[in-house]
Amino acid sequence: MSFHGESHPGIAPTPVETQGFRFNHTMLRIKDPARALAFYSRVLGMQVMRRLDFDEMSFSLYFLAHVEESHAVPEDVAARTAWTFSQTGILELTHNWGTEDDADFAYHDGNAEPQGFGHICISVPNLEAAQAWFDAHDATFIKRADQGKMKDVIFIKDPDGYWIEVVQADRMAGKGD
Amino acid sequence: MSFHGESHPGIAPTPVETQGFRFNHTMLRIKDPARALAFYSRVLGMQVMRRLDFDEMSFSLYFLAHVEESHAVPEDVAARTAWTFSQTGILELTHNWGTEDDADFAYHDGNAEPQGFGHICISVPNLEAAQAWFDAHDATFIKRADQGKMKDVIFIKDPDGYWIEVVQADRMAGKGD
Repeated sequence: MSFHGESHPGIAPTPVETQGFRFNHTMLRIKDPARALAFYSRVLGMQVMRRLDFDEMSFSLYFLAHVEESHAVPEDVAARTAWTFSQTGILELTHNWGTEDDADFAYHDGNAEPQGFGHICISVPNLEAAQAWFDAHDATFIKRADQGKMKDVIFIKDPDGYWIEVVQADRMAGKGD
Repeated sequence: MSFHGESHPGIAPTPVETQGFRFNHTMLRIKDPARALAFYSRVLGMQVMRRLDFDEMSFSLYFLAHVEESHAVPEDVAARTAWTFSQTGILELTHNWGTEDDADFAYHDGNAEPQGFGHICISVPNLEAAQAWFDAHDATFIKRADQGKMKDVIFIKDPDGYWIEVVQADRMAGKGD
């Protein structure tokens, strides 16, 4: 599809061969699952849909989602795994065993050099309520809603230092040109 | 929520204050929008929902999604922007103007050192059909479905070298322990 009067470099009509393709998840490596899962569940409201342990290779994967009332998440583990990989908005956290015991170990956030990945973004119903909620949980702010050039946008950090943008959808309509 | 017999380090019940939180998007920096948008539209079937240009700071943002038939995407630009920021499964590509003209410029994929971000993942209806489709577009494979320890999982690279996992949901049910 395209929108009236808009064009973009390189863009092509949607090929029929890509029907049913979905952006399922984003994977971030985490140092300490106890800290990361506490943050993503307590502060951001996500839940673990599926945990996969790979003993032979010494790592675990945690697939997280915001579970909404309309979601009929299967209890059966095989059905739930298939469900998880058919959704959008899944966050995969990869824990290589033992990193949590190394005081000097840290992952790269992608915003310091060398740059690449920038952030993930959570959309919330009320930006001020979310900001107060993050304050109540001593979240680390990069910027608050009233700071910087981009008003109405919050940036916080997760326990590994990854940037998390927080927006309220109906206040983004006037951004940019 | 939690599932019968499962527990995870650090996890907490979903706080009521996080109701309506959604994992909206993931942001990756791209060197050349013409190359990146050609790949994400032609090969992966995504479309630009909203482009935001920031002349003063010399960058553009492209918000991409897989548009499904059930999606009623507003034509009106303000309504469409609000719609975009209320979805899950959005990919934001950031273009800092001019990088496409610098032959030596490249972004960091997060898998080479220093590690952090790992990949994004696309779920597809048929893994073999998707692999043939990627072959037909000369996509760069990291691994095919029948290679490596993790069968039934494809990894390709986007034009900036970011890793893209490709899975078929109902073939993931037996993975891990």
